[in-house]
Amino acid sequence: MLDKKYLLPDEALRKVVEKLKFRSLPAEIVPLEASYDRVTHEDIISPEDLPGFIRSTVDGFAVKASDTFGARESSPAYLNLKGDIPMGAAPSFSLSRGEVASIATGGMLPEGADAVVMIEHVNVISAELIEVLKAVSPWENVIFKDEDIKKGDIVIRAGYRLKPQDVGALAGLGITEVRVSKKPIVSIILTGDEIVPPTEKILPGQVRDVNSFTLAGLVQKTGGIPLKMGIIRDVYEEIKASVQKAYEKSDIVLITGGTSAGFKDMTAKIIEELGSPGVLFHGVSMKPGKPIIGGVCGDKPVFGLPGHPVAVYICFELFVKPVIEHMLGLERKEVKRTIKAKMARNIHSQAGREDFIRVALEQKDGQLWAVPLLSKSGLIMSLVRADGILHIPPELLGFQEGDEVLVQIID
Amino acid sequence: MLDKKYLLPDEALRKVVEKLKFRSLPAEIVPLEASYDRVTHEDIISPEDLPGFIRSTVDGFAVKASDTFGARESSPAYLNLKGDIPMGAAPSFSLSRGEVASIATGGMLPEGADAVVMIEHVNVISAELIEVLKAVSPWENVIFKDEDIKKGDIVIRAGYRLKPQDVGALAGLGITEVRVSKKPIVSIILTGDEIVPPTEKILPGQVRDVNSFTLAGLVQKTGGIPLKMGIIRDVYEEIKASVQKAYEKSDIVLITGGTSAGFKDMTAKIIEELGSPGVLFHGVSMKPGKPIIGGVCGDKPVFGLPGHPVAVYICFELFVKPVIEHMLGLERKEVKRTIKAKMARNIHSQAGREDFIRVALEQKDGQLWAVPLLSKSGLIMSLVRADGILHIPPELLGFQEGDEVLVQIID
Repeated sequence: MLDKKYLLPDEALRKVVEKLKFRSLPAEIVPLEASYDRVTHEDIISPEDLPGFIRSTVDGFAVKASDTFGARESSPAYLNLKGDIPMGAAPSFSLSRGEVASIATGGMLPEGADAVVMIEHVNVISAELIEVLKAVSPWENVIFKDEDIKKGDIVIRAGYRLKPQDVGALAGLGITEVRVSKKPIVSIILTGDEIVPPTEKILPGQVRDVNSFTLAGLVQKTGGIPLKMGIIRDVYEEIKASVQKAYEKSDIVLITGGTSAGFKDMTAKIIEELGSPGVLFHGVSMKPGKPIIGGVCGDKPVFGLPGHPVAVYICFELFVKPVIEHMLGLERKEVKRTIKAKMARNIHSQAGREDFIRVALEQKDGQLWAVPLLSKSGLIMSLVRADGILHIPPELLGFQEGDEVLVQIID
Repeated sequence: MLDKKYLLPDEALRKVVEKLKFRSLPAEIVPLEASYDRVTHEDIISPEDLPGFIRSTVDGFAVKASDTFGARESSPAYLNLKGDIPMGAAPSFSLSRGEVASIATGGMLPEGADAVVMIEHVNVISAELIEVLKAVSPWENVIFKDEDIKKGDIVIRAGYRLKPQDVGALAGLGITEVRVSKKPIVSIILTGDEIVPPTEKILPGQVRDVNSFTLAGLVQKTGGIPLKMGIIRDVYEEIKASVQKAYEKSDIVLITGGTSAGFKDMTAKIIEELGSPGVLFHGVSMKPGKPIIGGVCGDKPVFGLPGHPVAVYICFELFVKPVIEHMLGLERKEVKRTIKAKMARNIHSQAGREDFIRVALEQKDGQLWAVPLLSKSGLIMSLVRADGILHIPPELLGFQEGDEVLVQIID
């Protein structure tokens, strides 16, 4: 078969995404402690100035900066120690000209002070007197009351996946609940008379379920909730009933197996019957994963994934993951981890097709080499052994031994 | 202060790691469904051959390859169709010379067959006769019974963090439980009279807890279980009691605040009293994070982290994360995500010190620019706004505008 009649992966993905609303999942409110890795559903606005008062950034003495002008080791400024500023409370006194107060990092400056001299630049002479060995400028070693963030400013934009430090910043602002996009429920249907669950002994001709375990993990990692629908026999009515049930219970439906042009191709028909617009593409110019079916029924994406474990992985990364991210309203896409390596041997591809080659990375002669794992795509161990994926774009016919390539790290 | 008396971060980390056993956390058995992202505690051995039988990799016809030798479009081989091979069961018949059987992808080859002709290269003449238009070699389009993995081979080595596709492979082998390293419990103690929880209204001079939220998220992400010990006042006895309790309940103790050389430095003393060898370093030649304290008491690492949110983040990445990974027995370290950019302006560093500069990444004139976020390290928003961290090694005095640099992506 010529690949010309098939779309490239990006074009095929676009057909699905065009039919979906951006940020189509509703919002829910979660406590701050549960907001890690969730995607913000709206801009988060600062309810207050942070830190809210003029704060010292060092341990030392709060001063009026002009009292220290000209001070140096050979000619210190002598100033009167008025008292200690306690942590966690407003100072109970203000400073007049010539007066200082000891202050710790994070302490609040008293009225009358406009800078802090570091403890390293001071000699304490007595309980009432210090000498300052180095001048400070006004506002040196302090943070202004709204220097971290101003009340009303955007702290974090909508469509952003919250990192630990973002959650920390929200805590600092007293924000204890966050509106985030609901996690999409992604149902996983396995089809195939030969498939048995891993808990069962297999008979000749049978194989165990690999794909629902791979897919469930990938769904979770992307921010969805996997919903396993079980293993369905290759009987049209049974698959149709399971897809119908999955469609009602979930936001995205994945059906594995039954997509190749062979004996038992029923998935496309079932997707077509499930709702309009139905099937948007059947087959993509890529390897592995070529027989993938993509569709949208009503407002829910439905994918028919090939049964080969490697193809399932590649199809998830290329189609299902971006669709989940689109529905979550994720604005900032993850930067892929890539690493440069040299090809350890020639690898051929077909023009007009995108190839995704599993490679192992090996150090030799002070150089990193990408060794293609040339195995049949039914082999599940090749994905375990692979360190990365090498993408061969459609305009190339492959790579030569020694070519420098960019390998996408599998993580 | 000269930085020469301080160790570099790597040297300091080594002092802690040397005192710890590798893979010091005990094992636990988890069901396969709960094994995602867990670290294997021992090599996992394959209990069987996979796939366990000779399997077709295509839809087509099982044949004896020699029956097809010489076949081509202009001169097909005519062969007798003996029957269909059902999926999920051993064929009920064997093939004799001149006989074929229809087979789907994943089907089991019958006795007597040694290859599969793809359906695209066959014309079905009648219910009993097909013509083969292309010869196949012996073992073409099949997987051998132990081609994926052999019984007794190592599936996954010890010290490996399980990815979704690894869990899938284990399912395929019928492995339903996995021995993994226990997750380390990491206790988090906040010290400081000025700190209040995010649920409380703050008074002048007070700030809210940022660090326990950042640290809890970072600990979870690294594979540990955070245990928040609350906010402790700057009173020696109270901090000591909390550290003692944390030490008993957890595998790693983190104490934030109270590490600078100023007024209230009690952390080092408390770590020293907690157990030998005690404090291993106090202060590291880095910025931010210089006042960090690292120690081991008995067999548990204890860190005194500075109170500044940015320093807390950098210290976690440089010290706590590698220590957690060491205790888990993680053999394969994560590849850091980096991206090349040009410096948007000059940035200076001190010789002999490692600097970690927060940068924003900006596209301009078809080029990615790293813009240093030059703010005081007390500012928590700079970490929210940063896209990455630029590391300035100790031998450099900084970078010039236009220099090409490698920025480590924050994720």
